[in-house]
Amino acid sequence: MTKSLTHITKVTVRFSECDALRMVWHGNYVKYFEDGREAFGKEYNLEYMDIFRKTGLAIPLVHIECDFKKMVGIGETIYVETTLVDNPAAKIIFNYTIYNDRKELVCKGKTIQVFLDTEKKELMITVPPFFEDWKIKYLK
Amino acid sequence: MTKSLTHITKVTVRFSECDALRMVWHGNYVKYFEDGREAFGKEYNLEYMDIFRKTGLAIPLVHIECDFKKMVGIGETIYVETTLVDNPAAKIIFNYTIYNDRKELVCKGKTIQVFLDTEKKELMITVPPFFEDWKIKYLK
Amino acid sequence: MTKSLTHITKVTVRFSECDALRMVWHGNYVKYFEDGREAFGKEYNLEYMDIFRKTGLAIPLVHIECDFKKMVGIGETIYVETTLVDNPAAKIIFNYTIYNDRKELVCKGKTIQVFLDTEKKELMITVPPFFEDWKIKYLK
Amino acid sequence: MTKSLTHITKVTVRFSECDALRMVWHGNYVKYFEDGREAFGKEYNLEYMDIFRKTGLAIPLVHIECDFKKMVGIGETIYVETTLVDNPAAKIIFNYTIYNDRKELVCKGKTIQVFLDTEKKELMITVPPFFEDWKIKYLK
Repeated sequence: MTKSLTHITKVTVRFSECDALRMVWHGNYVKYFEDGREAFGKEYNLEYMDIFRKTGLAIPLVHIECDFKKMVGIGETIYVETTLVDNPAAKIIFNYTIYNDRKELVCKGKTIQVFLDTEKKELMITVPPFFEDWKIKYLK
Repeated sequence: MTKSLTHITKVTVRFSECDALRMVWHGNYVKYFEDGREAFGKEYNLEYMDIFRKTGLAIPLVHIECDFKKMVGIGETIYVETTLVDNPAAKIIFNYTIYNDRKELVCKGKTIQVFLDTEKKELMITVPPFFEDWKIKYLK
Repeated sequence: MTKSLTHITKVTVRFSECDALRMVWHGNYVKYFEDGREAFGKEYNLEYMDIFRKTGLAIPLVHIECDFKKMVGIGETIYVETTLVDNPAAKIIFNYTIYNDRKELVCKGKTIQVFLDTEKKELMITVPPFFEDWKIKYLK
Repeated sequence: MTKSLTHITKVTVRFSECDALRMVWHGNYVKYFEDGREAFGKEYNLEYMDIFRKTGLAIPLVHIECDFKKMVGIGETIYVETTLVDNPAAKIIFNYTIYNDRKELVCKGKTIQVFLDTEKKELMITVPPFFEDWKIKYLK
């Protein structure tokens, strides 16, 4: 069975995140996904810089996708539901669902990250030990 | 036969577009796609605000995807190849290929836009006349 | 006596807000000032879009300044203290003090905004009635 | 006599840099100043990452100020005139003047940078040798 773990982050849309149509500029959803991912990492002990310092591994994104369903405007509050989906590969896969105050779907997205050995400058092809340990602790 | 039309835009990576790993932060590729789309619009007479003023139509994105192949760092020059792909639906579809100075592939992406009647607040389900005319002029 | 009114906003520094030196890129403080201003507006009923809809007035910035005292890094929490300083002119003046978790001063800043009649496309040279009323309610 | 050195950079305003009033959001001028500074550095051999690699010195901003004179909108072209002003202190001072296509003044700004020894984590209180050499070459 595939396990998953979810965190919900509340975000208030900034004036400067809205474009000439007075709606959130689409590129800012990538930031909201990051807000979700960082809040997830804080709650479940999976933080970028922390991992980098301990293991020398960077975890760059190799794929992002987003489907926009409903626009949101200045000052609105949105909720980013960030879900880590278990998978056997040397990857971290997150799904995102953003909805508004009225529980309407705003957008759905997905990111895939890989593990980069910054010393050897090589992608890791097997799951790094720290992440195996993390999965045992948080997903089993 | 599917027709396509391409524009290549040169972009210099800004210091502030790079993250803690000294590489372009992934979210900035969404801006580079927009740089490509706007330069395409300038060359081929397909500009957002111009269309909005003449027809009342907004052209929001409903889908974006991006696959990252190679990182780029501060001060590097990249080339955004923006291609409009003809399709019969009431959509504008762009493909993007970004490469660096050494002709190495940096990333590939795609966006889908729809036509929104801002007065009726309705999506258009048929291709709007202005875009039919544009296609006849530029794609045939 | 000059009156003032203060709001404190908590902000968590995003990964994407940090630059190649792993510290907040200086331009992002302008966003943090806006975070402070918007939170102030929410608490004290002084919101941009609300004012625009009711009066047709835009309130653009005409001056910004910032002195940086201490760098902050990824994941740190900062506090934006936003203070509206009373003044007789047709201007809104805010002072900002940002400090970190250890109460150390991070930066100090100031913005000046004016009132723009968007219909006549003219700057207002006297304080608009809505703001006189607001001052009586909140500053006296 | 105070010497100065100037570079002019052409910038096209992006759709995503404009806000709900369809004008450039004020915070983006900080990016335009950086565009100017980086183009200046490229022309006159004074580049951040290059200096950092050769000397271990970072050159953070400690002060920024900006006065906004005229709004600019989507797709407009602006010119950033970046001037390094000679001064005896261990500082780099730039003045910026931005104007539009019709030579109208858009904004004026100023930044002050200092030299940070990243190894000792100390500010330098005397002008570092590399910058003395640079000044002799470019300002005398």
